Amino acid sequence: MKINRKTKKHSKKAGLPPGTLVHVGEKKTEKVRITLIDYTEQDFQEKTVDNIEECFPFKATPTVTWINIDGLHHVETIEKLGKEFELHPLILEDILNTTQRPKCEDFDKYIFIVLKMLSHDEVEGGLKAEQVSMVLNRNFVISFQEEVGDVFEQIRDRLRKSKGRIRRMGADYLAYALIDAVVDNYFVILEKFGEKIESMQEQLVADPSEKTLQQIHSLKREMIFLRKSIWPLRELINGLQRTESALVTDATNIYLRDVYDHTIQIIDTIESFRDAVSGMLDIYLSSISNRMNAVMKVLTIIATIFIPLTFIAGIYGMNFKYMPELELRWGYAVALAVMVVVAILMLIYFRRKKWL
Amino acid sequence: MKINRKTKKHSKKAGLPPGTLVHVGEKKTEKVRITLIDYTEQDFQEKTVDNIEECFPFKATPTVTWINIDGLHHVETIEKLGKEFELHPLILEDILNTTQRPKCEDFDKYIFIVLKMLSHDEVEGGLKAEQVSMVLNRNFVISFQEEVGDVFEQIRDRLRKSKGRIRRMGADYLAYALIDAVVDNYFVILEKFGEKIESMQEQLVADPSEKTLQQIHSLKREMIFLRKSIWPLRELINGLQRTESALVTDATNIYLRDVYDHTIQIIDTIESFRDAVSGMLDIYLSSISNRMNAVMKVLTIIATIFIPLTFIAGIYGMNFKYMPELELRWGYAVALAVMVVVAILMLIYFRRKKWL
Amino acid sequence: MKINRKTKKHSKKAGLPPGTLVHVGEKKTEKVRITLIDYTEQDFQEKTVDNIEECFPFKATPTVTWINIDGLHHVETIEKLGKEFELHPLILEDILNTTQRPKCEDFDKYIFIVLKMLSHDEVEGGLKAEQVSMVLNRNFVISFQEEVGDVFEQIRDRLRKSKGRIRRMGADYLAYALIDAVVDNYFVILEKFGEKIESMQEQLVADPSEKTLQQIHSLKREMIFLRKSIWPLRELINGLQRTESALVTDATNIYLRDVYDHTIQIIDTIESFRDAVSGMLDIYLSSISNRMNAVMKVLTIIATIFIPLTFIAGIYGMNFKYMPELELRWGYAVALAVMVVVAILMLIYFRRKKWL
Amino acid sequence: MKINRKTKKHSKKAGLPPGTLVHVGEKKTEKVRITLIDYTEQDFQEKTVDNIEECFPFKATPTVTWINIDGLHHVETIEKLGKEFELHPLILEDILNTTQRPKCEDFDKYIFIVLKMLSHDEVEGGLKAEQVSMVLNRNFVISFQEEVGDVFEQIRDRLRKSKGRIRRMGADYLAYALIDAVVDNYFVILEKFGEKIESMQEQLVADPSEKTLQQIHSLKREMIFLRKSIWPLRELINGLQRTESALVTDATNIYLRDVYDHTIQIIDTIESFRDAVSGMLDIYLSSISNRMNAVMKVLTIIATIFIPLTFIAGIYGMNFKYMPELELRWGYAVALAVMVVVAILMLIYFRRKKWL
Amino acid sequence: MKINRKTKKHSKKAGLPPGTLVHVGEKKTEKVRITLIDYTEQDFQEKTVDNIEECFPFKATPTVTWINIDGLHHVETIEKLGKEFELHPLILEDILNTTQRPKCEDFDKYIFIVLKMLSHDEVEGGLKAEQVSMVLNRNFVISFQEEVGDVFEQIRDRLRKSKGRIRRMGADYLAYALIDAVVDNYFVILEKFGEKIESMQEQLVADPSEKTLQQIHSLKREMIFLRKSIWPLRELINGLQRTESALVTDATNIYLRDVYDHTIQIIDTIESFRDAVSGMLDIYLSSISNRMNAVMKVLTIIATIFIPLTFIAGIYGMNFKYMPELELRWGYAVALAVMVVVAILMLIYFRRKKWL
Repeated sequence: MKINRKTKKHSKKAGLPPGTLVHVGEKKTEKVRITLIDYTEQDFQEKTVDNIEECFPFKATPTVTWINIDGLHHVETIEKLGKEFELHPLILEDILNTTQRPKCEDFDKYIFIVLKMLSHDEVEGGLKAEQVSMVLNRNFVISFQEEVGDVFEQIRDRLRKSKGRIRRMGADYLAYALIDAVVDNYFVILEKFGEKIESMQEQLVADPSEKTLQQIHSLKREMIFLRKSIWPLRELINGLQRTESALVTDATNIYLRDVYDHTIQIIDTIESFRDAVSGMLDIYLSSISNRMNAVMKVLTIIATIFIPLTFIAGIYGMNFKYMPELELRWGYAVALAVMVVVAILMLIYFRRKKWL
Repeated sequence: MKINRKTKKHSKKAGLPPGTLVHVGEKKTEKVRITLIDYTEQDFQEKTVDNIEECFPFKATPTVTWINIDGLHHVETIEKLGKEFELHPLILEDILNTTQRPKCEDFDKYIFIVLKMLSHDEVEGGLKAEQVSMVLNRNFVISFQEEVGDVFEQIRDRLRKSKGRIRRMGADYLAYALIDAVVDNYFVILEKFGEKIESMQEQLVADPSEKTLQQIHSLKREMIFLRKSIWPLRELINGLQRTESALVTDATNIYLRDVYDHTIQIIDTIESFRDAVSGMLDIYLSSISNRMNAVMKVLTIIATIFIPLTFIAGIYGMNFKYMPELELRWGYAVALAVMVVVAILMLIYFRRKKWL
Repeated sequence: MKINRKTKKHSKKAGLPPGTLVHVGEKKTEKVRITLIDYTEQDFQEKTVDNIEECFPFKATPTVTWINIDGLHHVETIEKLGKEFELHPLILEDILNTTQRPKCEDFDKYIFIVLKMLSHDEVEGGLKAEQVSMVLNRNFVISFQEEVGDVFEQIRDRLRKSKGRIRRMGADYLAYALIDAVVDNYFVILEKFGEKIESMQEQLVADPSEKTLQQIHSLKREMIFLRKSIWPLRELINGLQRTESALVTDATNIYLRDVYDHTIQIIDTIESFRDAVSGMLDIYLSSISNRMNAVMKVLTIIATIFIPLTFIAGIYGMNFKYMPELELRWGYAVALAVMVVVAILMLIYFRRKKWL
Repeated sequence: MKINRKTKKHSKKAGLPPGTLVHVGEKKTEKVRITLIDYTEQDFQEKTVDNIEECFPFKATPTVTWINIDGLHHVETIEKLGKEFELHPLILEDILNTTQRPKCEDFDKYIFIVLKMLSHDEVEGGLKAEQVSMVLNRNFVISFQEEVGDVFEQIRDRLRKSKGRIRRMGADYLAYALIDAVVDNYFVILEKFGEKIESMQEQLVADPSEKTLQQIHSLKREMIFLRKSIWPLRELINGLQRTESALVTDATNIYLRDVYDHTIQIIDTIESFRDAVSGMLDIYLSSISNRMNAVMKVLTIIATIFIPLTFIAGIYGMNFKYMPELELRWGYAVALAVMVVVAILMLIYFRRKKWL
Repeated sequence: MKINRKTKKHSKKAGLPPGTLVHVGEKKTEKVRITLIDYTEQDFQEKTVDNIEECFPFKATPTVTWINIDGLHHVETIEKLGKEFELHPLILEDILNTTQRPKCEDFDKYIFIVLKMLSHDEVEGGLKAEQVSMVLNRNFVISFQEEVGDVFEQIRDRLRKSKGRIRRMGADYLAYALIDAVVDNYFVILEKFGEKIESMQEQLVADPSEKTLQQIHSLKREMIFLRKSIWPLRELINGLQRTESALVTDATNIYLRDVYDHTIQIIDTIESFRDAVSGMLDIYLSSISNRMNAVMKVLTIIATIFIPLTFIAGIYGMNFKYMPELELRWGYAVALAVMVVVAILMLIYFRRKKWL
């Protein structure tokens, strides 16, 4: 039913000049939170800043700097940041407009990446997408999220604890790590999805109801949503890998190939799920029709057995003067016996025909 | 039902030599209105002219000039314009023939663009397309529309009020802005479309009728129409972006990438809508069949319960001389009781089988 | 049902050496008619010749010459022509074999084009295709048709009346004009097709019968036929446009782009028609099933109402000695009243359930 | 049902080292027959040889030599031939393994071609494929067939009678002629196929039975088989045309273009047939359901008419003491009349509703 | 029902840094078994080693060395091996993660290949995939399997017995032989699959039940699984063939072309199977509906015959005073005769309509 939400958001902007900074999307958080992580192999500092200007001194340093902004409704912050880091107005517009498709654009001096971070919507029950935008430069990554809370905590931990190659390698590796975290999270989403499909399959065999059909269709819709969010990733990562930009080093490129493989795997899994769901639809329809057939068959058989019997009773209910059988001593008993025999013969016939 | 309108229009021209200027399409407006906007970063003038010749002096000036013509039936005007601006006869023909697909053609000295501007047809209830053609040269844009009234008002406003980069940049940016306005308008159309789908989905659950099927099919037809109008845009904008023509500057190219993204997004949305509509068709068919099944089931159950009872009544309606039960004091009461018991047993059985 | 006609024609040739000149196809005309049109911008002559040799002197002249041959069964004529104009044996074979797909082949010295000219078959009721082959050289066009009567009359008129650019431009423009005439004619065909679909749609709503299904399928078959004839045109014209042959000038190329657009438009329309026809199939099937459901429902309801009533009548038809109701003065009237009440209650229930 | 035959054959070889010469497929003939045709424009000789070694002297001569081997089970012959003509072991393996897809491989010194020759299986009733492999060198063609009997007889005739260009041109033209013969034969197959479809279509309208469904599915299976055998041909011939190998001359290339056209035409025809067959499936299903509906409708109508009549009879079968109608002189006649009127009214109603 | 297993395995790793060595997948074997085969054309030695370090001396020798590791859960072994042979951490990760898609990656110094070895799961009844990874270097191949037992036994035999070209050619040929063994094994799998389909088809004709539907769907699922495992092979082998790496020699390349052909053939077969299975679904659905129709028809006919008869009986059961027929001597007999006649007429009518 949420089919229209996204378009509605967008149509609000129709007619405004391009590059106008308007936050398109739900305001998901009250406060804007800006966190800054700055590191080299030896040093590491992390702080939450109140004012975006506090981040600007780090621009010139040779250290790798990661600025993360949670909450997009404070347009001024984004604007100041854009001015300082010389971001193209259209990029700022894309960051604020949360209806973007995942994409990767190369602006010579920096690379702009849009991703969708998925999570299960605990309240409404379906899937929820949060837009994550990233600007990658030689020695900094700026990421933008719609609200506080993300899948990057483990990356922060790895940075803090100085383990792994993440502290040795540059900003491009950090960007890769963020993309990888988002993609890895899709596996978690898919797992829950798979569980849903499995439980639905069991329910389908045990007790299919009209509600099941609705659930299958909502599953289908969620899958289309999932697919739409993930499919462009393929092109995105491919674009990153093939970029001629010096911002992505060969060392990182090998890691991107790995994420690419994961993306293909996820797309494969989604296709399998899609096949499974349409299989479920077939099974549902045929089990509904089987069930109806079962009802009709048994009921029709009952009717069919009694109709000839009632006819026999009808014959001896006629008021003809001369009906010799009526006078017989055992007439009634014989009539009853005949009825029983007819009923039994019909039952045997039905059974032989495998209708019972 | 309007499937034939377009072809009908076109077949009228079959056999005429190419480049013959005939207005193909409905004459949607009485008067031809010509407006002229001429601007540089500093100056701005706007006027409505009666005669196309009044626009010709602006051809040679270095200012950016936008000539907009509403109404295509006055062929002479188009012809004079074509002669003055050295437009190829086939272009003039395409401008007049409103059955074109969206396309972009590069004629060295100018670029020719055809778009479809969509709106909801308040009278007939479906979608309505108006053809917008544009000729882009180094310092002028000539646009042709079928009737007065368009989605460009906000662009005129931006030009008048001298805000944004629109006054600084050249004719190519103006052309981009016009395309962007048309594309942005599609979001509005899609939003209404989404609302229609949502209300249909609710109706489908609440009260599906044969009319619903017709509505779903008309929705489907509109979607095909929409798709046909928008799909070629992708190629069009791609063509503009990749053109080697010097008429499109690099600065504008970045903006075209933005429109391209929007177009992809719109096509994605249309695909989602298509999935939604075919899902609705499935749900409709299965709910119609469920409803029929419900009728049949209840009615058959009623019949089935009474058939054995009627049989029992039939037995004691027989006129055999020797039927001991008939003589019994409580025979009638017992017979009635047996009937009630049989009925109850059948009801229990049906309930247990979940047929009730 | 005509599915096999084409294959049958072709299999007749299986095993013959390539280049064997055999006329494959129906002999549609008795006499072979050869017409010759020769023109420059100043001069024009047109004549019908009895003997192909009369055309040969025009080969060397710098004027544009159009030789048109109606009727392919006179193999010798084609053979002589082929020898004189140095046509490859396979081309002659293709001209005579009317089961070709539309195609365009570049033989350095000339370009060979095969088209399908469509018309409505007044006798059998479906579509009829006539193969038009063309050989284009620097200053002549030779066209071959299966029978007299074509869509080129307006071109001849334009040539005669010396209007338009057709007399100024070369043989390649003439070839373009012929292709354009064939393509324009498709719009006429499509219009009639569209009318057929529209009238079918109305009939479908008003009174669907088993015949309707057959008609929908025959429509579908015709559409497949149409599609098969037109689809390869796209590639054909594309091939002509991109040819490196000097036979097609740049000036004509722009016109070919126009025909290309028309072809795309026709293909688009065919796709729309296809969607419309499959929509009709859906509507047909669901309306047939709705109609059946309506019959079943009403009939079942009648049965269901009378079954309990008959049961009540059955009870008082029993011959038990002690049935107090039978003795009552108003017993009969009450029984009737009970029956009426039961019937009314059931009708109310059915109406409330919206089964009536 | 023959779906497994091919795989079964192949799995027998699993695990053997590549290049192991094992004849995979049915042994279709007892004796291996080797025929040799050697010709220049002036000379021609043809002989059947007992021993493959007899062919070896022709290898060095400048004449065109065609060695044809019918029967593949005599592995030694193939092995000797392979050694003498320096064929790669994998080619020998492919020749012996009759489950190959049609393909064309360029081994510098020679070109290896695999084709499927189709025929109607008179015994089992379906289609039968025979693998034809060819090795093309500068001045010889070696062809391998599974059994005696082929579609090349007319080529042998043309060679013998020295008519046509076949004797003038080289080994590549001979190879082309063989491919052409195989492709031309497909038209014969398709013709028979088309006749089958036509007769099935008539039967479908006249008298559809459950057997019809099976036949439609077997038709479908045969078509898939056909398609699988012919589809790769397109790529094969395309590959031959575009090969950079000097073995295929330009003169022959023009002829290959002709075979390519035929292949496209055959594939087109198969697609039409496929459409026709799935249309038949639709018609079958809907005619079966129409037929069932007709039965149900008439039967239900009969039941529905009699149920109210029986109810009326039931009323006057009640034993109430005071039933004034029973005493009336014309009571019985009036009751009968009422019944007739009710029946007539119902019939009129049904007719008006077009249920009859 | 196993749809979720794979995703579940993978989601366990989400969030870990890339290159972390964790065995993802079931631990299928207790002990890790390492076997080493080292050979030149003259020499051959084979041994099972306890410790991976024992293999390291062979790294520097010019002989071809094949190290095979069965069991992936002992991460240290893999890690040591990786360090010694300078394998990229992501490769080690891919080896341990058994949810990879088949792929081929070129790391300059070595080529990394992932394959799926299929077998029938004797316990659970479906298909089972085991991941086989290979690292190919100039003079060694390292292969990794999930458990002991594989399809390579015949290759080991060929190596031991020094027959065939396998001992002459290099490590790339060995890698090819391993791939070929895996692909050849697919034919065995497909054969069993084909047998299953055939037996299902027979069952479908003989006695379709609701269980059949489930079986068809499980067949479909297995086919999707099969397809997913085999489809990427095409690209893999294609990649190997086109690699610019010096590790794959031209001589081996010809053999790869052969495996490529086999892969295409397998994919073709899977497509045929898919067509067969969906044909089965159609036949199932239509036979279920035919069967239901048969039940309904016969039962309805019985009902329909008796309803008019019962009506006649009902008429003479009425208690009107003046019913002349009741008094007639032969009234009863005539009534019975009329009933018999009516029944016979109806049967004749039904038979003529082919409803019986």
